Amino acid sequence: MYDLWVNYPAIPAQEAAVSGALRGLLEGGAPLPAAYGPPQGAEAARRAIAPLLGLAPGQALALTCGGQSALSVAFAAALAAAGPGRRRIAMEAHTFPMARHFLALEGVPTLGLPMDAEGMDLAALEQALASPEPPGVLYVMPVVHNPLGLTYSAARLAALAAIVARHDLWVVEDEAYAFLAAPELRPPSLASLLPERVFGMWSLSKMVSLSLRLGAVSAPAALAEVAAEQIRIRGLTANPVIAAATARLAEDGTAARLVAEKRAEGAARRALAREILGTARFATEPGDSWHIWMHRPAGEAEADFLARARAAEVSLAPATPFRHAGGEAPFFRLSLGGEAERARLAEGLGRLARVLT
Amino acid sequence: MYDLWVNYPAIPAQEAAVSGALRGLLEGGAPLPAAYGPPQGAEAARRAIAPLLGLAPGQALALTCGGQSALSVAFAAALAAAGPGRRRIAMEAHTFPMARHFLALEGVPTLGLPMDAEGMDLAALEQALASPEPPGVLYVMPVVHNPLGLTYSAARLAALAAIVARHDLWVVEDEAYAFLAAPELRPPSLASLLPERVFGMWSLSKMVSLSLRLGAVSAPAALAEVAAEQIRIRGLTANPVIAAATARLAEDGTAARLVAEKRAEGAARRALAREILGTARFATEPGDSWHIWMHRPAGEAEADFLARARAAEVSLAPATPFRHAGGEAPFFRLSLGGEAERARLAEGLGRLARVLT
Repeated sequence: MYDLWVNYPAIPAQEAAVSGALRGLLEGGAPLPAAYGPPQGAEAARRAIAPLLGLAPGQALALTCGGQSALSVAFAAALAAAGPGRRRIAMEAHTFPMARHFLALEGVPTLGLPMDAEGMDLAALEQALASPEPPGVLYVMPVVHNPLGLTYSAARLAALAAIVARHDLWVVEDEAYAFLAAPELRPPSLASLLPERVFGMWSLSKMVSLSLRLGAVSAPAALAEVAAEQIRIRGLTANPVIAAATARLAEDGTAARLVAEKRAEGAARRALAREILGTARFATEPGDSWHIWMHRPAGEAEADFLARARAAEVSLAPATPFRHAGGEAPFFRLSLGGEAERARLAEGLGRLARVLT
Repeated sequence: MYDLWVNYPAIPAQEAAVSGALRGLLEGGAPLPAAYGPPQGAEAARRAIAPLLGLAPGQALALTCGGQSALSVAFAAALAAAGPGRRRIAMEAHTFPMARHFLALEGVPTLGLPMDAEGMDLAALEQALASPEPPGVLYVMPVVHNPLGLTYSAARLAALAAIVARHDLWVVEDEAYAFLAAPELRPPSLASLLPERVFGMWSLSKMVSLSLRLGAVSAPAALAEVAAEQIRIRGLTANPVIAAATARLAEDGTAARLVAEKRAEGAARRALAREILGTARFATEPGDSWHIWMHRPAGEAEADFLARARAAEVSLAPATPFRHAGGEAPFFRLSLGGEAERARLAEGLGRLARVLT
């Protein structure tokens, strides 16, 4: 089976980098970090990792045991800030399924808002805010959106920030794939525009290696304790040895080098997809992402299409789980991270091309 | 300040053991575990660690990013099993504060039940079960209770198991400190008596080292997926490198040796406490624990007593946070794990003796 499902951006060098950092930690002679530390992680590790994430001034950073736990802290802290009267969360109509699963588990009502190529439809957001039950929290992925791959325009983000400020919204800004966008080309983060209103989240596992299983969450500096308390009570504190190893990777430039290599590898893989598939079926411009939102053949049910792909030994991510409203739509997510070898990826894309014709 | 607050059972050898296991993993030549694995942790790691925990037949094990996250999974899975109609949790009237904090965060109503030297008062439990809002979940620490230090009698546990079965209760069995009791002397776990009704939890961080920040949760085999799904959605999966290192410590006998050393060190520290303080103020028999539930001088408010101790450079854990009902009671928790050196512990106990006279 050719894996065109997984969009994790892996490169061969990443695990050796983590091994090297752990070896350096063990050979450094200092005892392993072991005492009960602050729930948000050791100050030294947070300080080392913050620049890698582009932490905005006025924001406080906390480390967690993975990206999903970071996202859960961001949601829980934003909901606490919004208060019980504004517990509804507005999100993009296509969104990260595990975010919806967490909110469903917590019994939090959500609302999906339409998008165009520049980002969320702000008229729809204004309309939701004028409703009798206005949302109190906004969940967005402005840079390298999953599953759409798109990045918001700077103008759309500035207009969004103005609405947030006007309506006292709290924001969960998901930066899980944002590192794939070159910093000089991406729009400023909402956290940098509204540091007192935004909870950000990152996955060091995605930026560096899944062996780290390390996440990070930022909070307005005044609410750092709210986030730390969520981490403490839910038991989400990052492993201190892994945090220290990651701090080494951030400090000596290895993590930034891996990120740059992931960007370059992604560009090569997207070029391969364009070459083999053409762009006629691209539903959005993939930008800097390792996944592409694609049109599937008209008039065929999702299950039938996926079965046909599987028969051709191609595994694809269905569109349905990414849709806030549920139900079918004529799309699928093509992902370029599942095959370690570019040659295997090319073979899989070739098979997919035949499935799509 | 002499730390007589922290009850974490530390011994000098533990961090070197973790370093050794990580070194072995890195030098073994195999790549670091890095792929997306099952949320409950790699099968090989779980199989290696299960015997160390004494996993009961009929129970499935999952690893998590620490003891508190293991406890949260046990609660969430037990509540899911009990269903929305039986969402109340009965617990011991003296209990682990972080358990109450998690349940408060989740909005779960709780009920405290009195205890005697053999464990929970079963008449009080029967009475709660006959009430209009019977609890659906029972949270207990039968072996080396925190803060009381006591271990349930086998007879009390058998009677408790019978009530659980009769009333279709689900149980969260907290084994965080149970490893301090010699296996041949401890009563059988509730999980071994009722494997289809019990969610167990352990802290590898306590058994081995805080550098691991690794927890474990067990579920009835038929409900393993319920627990795994909670781990996945809350983002509580254990770090795969740390899990593999811990598996090595379990397989080569190092973890069992550390546990035995912690038991022996605890006995020596309790002997010191008996020698320096006498036992007249022991409110319960400490059994195998590193903490002792103590009477404080009559007629003095808790805050005044703790302030007097601090003035003598002794830091003690107040009783109030451990009380389900809240409010003062004439106790405090003396803990024997805060000072690394036994000589420092003896000095601190000497100062406490003067505070208590």
